[in-house]
Amino acid sequence: MRVFVAGASGRVGTLLTRDLVEQGNDVVAASRHPEQFAGQDHVTAMTLDLHAPVEQLAEDLHGVDAVYFVAGSRGKDLLQTDAFGAVKLMMAVQQVGIKRFILLSSMFADEPSKWDDPNLRNITNYNIAKFFADQWLMTRTDLNYTIVQPCNLVEEPATGKVAFGVQHSTTNSIGDVAAVLAAVLDKPNTYRKIIMMSNGDIPIAEAVAQV
Amino acid sequence: MRVFVAGASGRVGTLLTRDLVEQGNDVVAASRHPEQFAGQDHVTAMTLDLHAPVEQLAEDLHGVDAVYFVAGSRGKDLLQTDAFGAVKLMMAVQQVGIKRFILLSSMFADEPSKWDDPNLRNITNYNIAKFFADQWLMTRTDLNYTIVQPCNLVEEPATGKVAFGVQHSTTNSIGDVAAVLAAVLDKPNTYRKIIMMSNGDIPIAEAVAQV
Repeated sequence: MRVFVAGASGRVGTLLTRDLVEQGNDVVAASRHPEQFAGQDHVTAMTLDLHAPVEQLAEDLHGVDAVYFVAGSRGKDLLQTDAFGAVKLMMAVQQVGIKRFILLSSMFADEPSKWDDPNLRNITNYNIAKFFADQWLMTRTDLNYTIVQPCNLVEEPATGKVAFGVQHSTTNSIGDVAAVLAAVLDKPNTYRKIIMMSNGDIPIAEAVAQV
Repeated sequence: MRVFVAGASGRVGTLLTRDLVEQGNDVVAASRHPEQFAGQDHVTAMTLDLHAPVEQLAEDLHGVDAVYFVAGSRGKDLLQTDAFGAVKLMMAVQQVGIKRFILLSSMFADEPSKWDDPNLRNITNYNIAKFFADQWLMTRTDLNYTIVQPCNLVEEPATGKVAFGVQHSTTNSIGDVAAVLAAVLDKPNTYRKIIMMSNGDIPIAEAVAQV
């Protein structure tokens, strides 16, 4: 499959790109830092500008079978990147007729009543950006989406194990988040689902199969 | 009619509150500066916190027949005030069963392809916030909404005259914007409509009647 990753040079995107290639896919690694992917087999580096109009993004998607949005501005450009950048990419995907879209979101992004949790209280702006992106995907598109909502991302070794649907915020190794994102790519049982993930004891393939 | 104005102490809200009272309404003037309305006849001042949960906002709406959202953070809190603050107020309005909702938006807020106009280029974040608020109102509620989209607001004397549907950005006196907002309150022909307004030659009552 030819897979477009928006935000490929980020912490999640870098590992996701690697995992997708290992699964046998060709990846269009779209980011502001395409030089990071120079010389990598099965990776086509592309400069991505999420401030560009929908028409430009649609051109970037030529020949692509599935699209990931894992870009993030780390709080610096939430409206134009995390929220509206994601929405424009969805619009572009719809425009060119791609059906599969996988969005990296954040735990409880669609449940504002939980945003006063001590772990979430300081990221309200981020949650609002993710809320609008998630909601657009679920209600304004007819895409086969999967929304992955991890807890706080931490730079710890991947465990290969997770729990889905846990109702309290813990942490997630970035490697495990990337692995879940890669694992759902061709799994129709994850279409039109939100996967809320946290640390756990279930091997990722097994957890994804049970969604 | 008992009318709730979110953002009553702002530049538009102050004049809107005055106009609504002159039309014979009682106004709940909700803002962060309720002291501004002390002693005004037919005005009940209320402290409004747009960071509050939907349930709190719903309580604030007790006994109200119609709701205006004219609050704005002037770029300082776009996600929590202009975008999600508006959405939460819509949710609260739906929750308590009020049907009439009037939203102050901005010219071309729902037409991103026009945001590179020289007059709009520097307010993309603002337009995105308004885009999400407008879109929520139009597609996620069943309210009898009217969205008023003026051009750049200027502190010039009101003319009492406007043009609707003009396709280029000019300016609007704040007084004229307030007068249009007040004029649409009880006009069913403005339900489920976007009114794009600019300076013009048509008396406001006449322009509103023609919507």
